[in-house]
Amino acid sequence: MSELKGAVIFGQSGGPTAVINASAAGVFQEALRQKAITAVYGAAHGIKGILEEKFYDMGKEDPYELELLKTTPSSALGSVRYKLKNAEEDETDYKRILEVFKKYNIRYFFYNGGNDSMDTCNKVSKYMQQAGYECRVMGVPKTIDNDLWGTDHCPGYGSAARYIATSIMEVYQDARVYDQGQITILEIMGRNAGWLTASSALAADAGCGPDLIYLPELPFDLDKFIAEVNDLYQKQKNVIVAVSEGIKDKDGRYISEYGQDLAYTDSFGHVQLGGLASTLVNILKQKIDAKIRGIEFSLLQRCAAHLGSRTDVDEAVLAGEMAVRYAVEGKTDYMVAFERAAGPVYKCQTKLVNLSEVANKEKKIPREWINEAGNGLKQPFIDYALPLIQGASAPPMENSLPRFAKLKKVLASELVTL
Amino acid sequence: MSELKGAVIFGQSGGPTAVINASAAGVFQEALRQKAITAVYGAAHGIKGILEEKFYDMGKEDPYELELLKTTPSSALGSVRYKLKNAEEDETDYKRILEVFKKYNIRYFFYNGGNDSMDTCNKVSKYMQQAGYECRVMGVPKTIDNDLWGTDHCPGYGSAARYIATSIMEVYQDARVYDQGQITILEIMGRNAGWLTASSALAADAGCGPDLIYLPELPFDLDKFIAEVNDLYQKQKNVIVAVSEGIKDKDGRYISEYGQDLAYTDSFGHVQLGGLASTLVNILKQKIDAKIRGIEFSLLQRCAAHLGSRTDVDEAVLAGEMAVRYAVEGKTDYMVAFERAAGPVYKCQTKLVNLSEVANKEKKIPREWINEAGNGLKQPFIDYALPLIQGASAPPMENSLPRFAKLKKVLASELVTL
Repeated sequence: MSELKGAVIFGQSGGPTAVINASAAGVFQEALRQKAITAVYGAAHGIKGILEEKFYDMGKEDPYELELLKTTPSSALGSVRYKLKNAEEDETDYKRILEVFKKYNIRYFFYNGGNDSMDTCNKVSKYMQQAGYECRVMGVPKTIDNDLWGTDHCPGYGSAARYIATSIMEVYQDARVYDQGQITILEIMGRNAGWLTASSALAADAGCGPDLIYLPELPFDLDKFIAEVNDLYQKQKNVIVAVSEGIKDKDGRYISEYGQDLAYTDSFGHVQLGGLASTLVNILKQKIDAKIRGIEFSLLQRCAAHLGSRTDVDEAVLAGEMAVRYAVEGKTDYMVAFERAAGPVYKCQTKLVNLSEVANKEKKIPREWINEAGNGLKQPFIDYALPLIQGASAPPMENSLPRFAKLKKVLASELVTL
Repeated sequence: MSELKGAVIFGQSGGPTAVINASAAGVFQEALRQKAITAVYGAAHGIKGILEEKFYDMGKEDPYELELLKTTPSSALGSVRYKLKNAEEDETDYKRILEVFKKYNIRYFFYNGGNDSMDTCNKVSKYMQQAGYECRVMGVPKTIDNDLWGTDHCPGYGSAARYIATSIMEVYQDARVYDQGQITILEIMGRNAGWLTASSALAADAGCGPDLIYLPELPFDLDKFIAEVNDLYQKQKNVIVAVSEGIKDKDGRYISEYGQDLAYTDSFGHVQLGGLASTLVNILKQKIDAKIRGIEFSLLQRCAAHLGSRTDVDEAVLAGEMAVRYAVEGKTDYMVAFERAAGPVYKCQTKLVNLSEVANKEKKIPREWINEAGNGLKQPFIDYALPLIQGASAPPMENSLPRFAKLKKVLASELVTL
């Protein structure tokens, strides 16, 4: 394959993770090492930064700060949720992207994100091919949800899973200190796939985890749930339950919406409503005479770089680096994916999957990894997930608080005269 | 002072912290080293375990597990919220305690807790004196709230503060990734004293913290709050606000109760209620057209041993050890307290304060450490708090998850034949 000289642009898209910046570091550091690459740009707020010609010259950054990106959570360049229309319907955005690519001689486009972002990446890739503009396009996987198709797992998942399992082990200690018992409901992210909620099973496997786990992969039956929690409460007094924010009933209605019309009035005459955890707490309080507490891990679970998985961080960096190397070698129109070697020892390498195969698809937890009762995980899930949380990653500390990357963010448009 | 031969009993009381078990380790390890001490007992659920004659022989525990207590959060022996009546009103509990003390020849009573627990400790101490039963009584301070009187600070505070500051620095990264802006409301524990909420100022001092901080030390004015948040939002789009769960209006009413009769109906016609963070989110949503998110740190903030302060853990151990040493030397009726040396370098040593001076009192943040506008902290608070979060403490890991202490909990009653 012939050498393609030109600039790189890299964008971050979708919800933050603890390691999306680690992939950015991988892309930037590798791209800055490649002779074929003439400039390295980072788009502000993903595809929007390209449309608005707002992107930074990463070559102007201090190499130490780029290195710090590996332990800086969230999206240092800014993220976006922006769905490109189909080019057949409306070509405006595509024409603008092509214009910007030409203006800056951008020949490499790397896009880091989940399902929707791979759709963006795929559309840009196909348009450039059709327009006859030579540009190598590569998706870099990212999502705490771990639901990208075509890859064994996704960067971002291992760190979030390690945070969730560790935090639950701590809450487990806390939630049983009084002798009157307590029911604790933990709400974990994941709208359609239960991988994150399932990571609570790692805490259970370590002896300090939830008794019951409810995933969005199976329809949620409220009466069954109440009976299962109550049975355990009567038996052992302390009950911990992990629920995915995305659980739905058999009619496809989110349980978190139940609170909005249950019009439940508590003993003080107050209507009680809220998110999923507080909805379930309020429902249980009507049925079980117990101390019941809801905890929502909220944003904390996706930005906890201080409790990162070293495996996850290293693989996130690798995904970024490999995207650049594959593209420089001549590959285009792919997403970098992970393939796990068979056997008891965890080994993992990158491979390529077609962008059009990945876009807009979701990977869910196989039914056979969930127990018969639909309220817990089986050993194959533990065997799958435990290797992904191995090793500790944390930012360097200043005054015992994290020192995150500080980018200068020099706008490329202020530097380039074409 | 003459040597007093006899057994030790130690109890944990009140809300969990990341380091209450570190003080337990200090007491147990030091007591097991002392020749005068004939047995070392740990009470199940504090004073209740004494009343019910349910306590464990700590000499039967594996020394390695006792060492692991230093990094195991929450109360390994179980905690309690139990208020002893005044002995003049009802002597029942006191007679029972005396009976148990005599039966097991308990001559040393150590009680680890906050304001209420020091009240218990004080009452037991006074009763034993009055009954003429020689027993040395020592309070060991503990509270994430940091509101104990007579001590520079309290074990438990530094670790919770380090967790809060770190988590906020991470949320800060997360809460500004999209370009449309976001208001984030962080709810932090502390009913009457704002020390924990104030620790969010350490994140601000590190450049990634809240813009506004509201403490329970000052009356909370809802209109002023809305105006301050809105002004900042219009100016900078991203606003982070830390609020103490205990903020009250000028009439002494908790703001968290507002949600219960505001009967606020959202745009879908649903009544919206919840804790303080969600109450404030709902109020702001009526006034400001913005993305607004509430996060409650909940139990996570008090049991996060994985992000402990080494200074805090070491001092918690020291407090336990010194309680034993002081008592063996002949001291009684005191709480172990911390005294900070003057000067720029942090140095701290233990001292003793009378239990009756400590019981039921609260220490609040001085007004002059809070800014004029009442929505932030000044440098003297940073100078006070920053040394307390220094150094990292975390449990040893197994499979990259915490390995907490596993106690055998051998009941003393099954061993002792008297």
